[in-house]
Amino acid sequence: MPRYRLIVAYDGTDFHGWQKQEPPDEEPLRTVQGELETVVQQVVREPVNVIGASRTDSGVHAHGQVAVFTAALSIPPSKMVRAINSRLPADVQVLRARFVHHKFSPISDALSKGYRYRIAHSGQIGAPAPLFDRNIVTFAPYVLDADRMNEAARQVIGKHDFASFTRRHHGRECTVRTVHDCTVTATNSRRLRIDVSGDGFLYNMVRIIAGTLVEVGRGRIEPDAIPEILAARDRAAAGPTLPPEGLCLMWVKYGSQSV
Amino acid sequence: MPRYRLIVAYDGTDFHGWQKQEPPDEEPLRTVQGELETVVQQVVREPVNVIGASRTDSGVHAHGQVAVFTAALSIPPSKMVRAINSRLPADVQVLRARFVHHKFSPISDALSKGYRYRIAHSGQIGAPAPLFDRNIVTFAPYVLDADRMNEAARQVIGKHDFASFTRRHHGRECTVRTVHDCTVTATNSRRLRIDVSGDGFLYNMVRIIAGTLVEVGRGRIEPDAIPEILAARDRAAAGPTLPPEGLCLMWVKYGSQSV
Repeated sequence: MPRYRLIVAYDGTDFHGWQKQEPPDEEPLRTVQGELETVVQQVVREPVNVIGASRTDSGVHAHGQVAVFTAALSIPPSKMVRAINSRLPADVQVLRARFVHHKFSPISDALSKGYRYRIAHSGQIGAPAPLFDRNIVTFAPYVLDADRMNEAARQVIGKHDFASFTRRHHGRECTVRTVHDCTVTATNSRRLRIDVSGDGFLYNMVRIIAGTLVEVGRGRIEPDAIPEILAARDRAAAGPTLPPEGLCLMWVKYGSQSV
Repeated sequence: MPRYRLIVAYDGTDFHGWQKQEPPDEEPLRTVQGELETVVQQVVREPVNVIGASRTDSGVHAHGQVAVFTAALSIPPSKMVRAINSRLPADVQVLRARFVHHKFSPISDALSKGYRYRIAHSGQIGAPAPLFDRNIVTFAPYVLDADRMNEAARQVIGKHDFASFTRRHHGRECTVRTVHDCTVTATNSRRLRIDVSGDGFLYNMVRIIAGTLVEVGRGRIEPDAIPEILAARDRAAAGPTLPPEGLCLMWVKYGSQSV
């Protein structure tokens, strides 16, 4: 049976995250996985499981989520894209599709993932927050120094124990992850973005990295304090968890042999 | 009593337009004027009328609406901005404020207004529509030729009877208006914007100009047909009315003596 791999983009604002949630005796919550499965089942006319590479949280967006399903219906991937998109609501869309090996797993075959966190900032009292893109940008009411933030960001790169950068009681045995890149880019004097990529991420890890870099940017944490924060292995050592709306899953990368 | 002039920006998606609507025996509809008046009254602690320069329709946005009110409370305009913004919902904000002459009228003193209409286009079957900015961009499922559109746009400029570019039974005695500028700019291969400015606009006029230019851009109307369409003085001669979400009121200009 053909296995399809989709690149999925969504505006997470009105979704309860990626993962299907069907509380017993209650209306199922609106999730991206739920919407996609409903539509894919209409197209392929059989029950399917749609598996995503990353379980993005409520309010988090995706530009390049990877989702996979297997079905008996064999049609050209471009036709599958059109069939799915014509049925999807306006806040989720399939950008591309291709066939993959029947053993391909979007989760365990992923080599790395890239996230972007967007921030608007201003130290002026009463400065207007983002308006038209307020659902995809987080507003920080401070002046942020992008150079200082970048100095700190460089020290996040590498293989570290990120226990300070995840929720307490995270339930994970191993909190060691490798961050391949972490860069802060000022797109103008009041906007910046933080691009983080790595082999895997703990729960809330990118949002806590972003929150810690904001503390550095406004002068409350020194850039060279990052090694100590990592060494503490204590959530309290890092900065706050920034809200979900600024976060977007940009891409997921796979080895050439796995696809 | 001081008279305040505000520059107001809003995302029109969740508003029933600018103008207050309070149907008898029903809940008042959510309008920009209604939200602003409620907040201004909380700040100045007396009943006020907030008058806007343009009655934008349901779903239409503003980057530079001008709104005016008079109240006994005299505080610095920058303080008024902060007091209002701290109470407004996230989809409307005051960008600036200043004092104006007590006889200043945002409607009759306006010399010109500028609107922008944003379009995403693609002729590829199943091409994805805009996602994150879908509330401020209209999607046209055609390849549009911006040069052809510009050729037509130039012929809209000038003093003309725009009866073909407004709703039938518009209720206006005079349909002559002067368009100062009409320019189509391709921002990339799949995005363009139409900037129209003039001394005044009839109901739906910008959306019908945009709809006519799209017909030109996809090859269904010739660029040099614009003079005939104007001469017809018949709504049926022009292109369709494009949807509200692509439209944004960018600015309103006043003479230096009126402010």
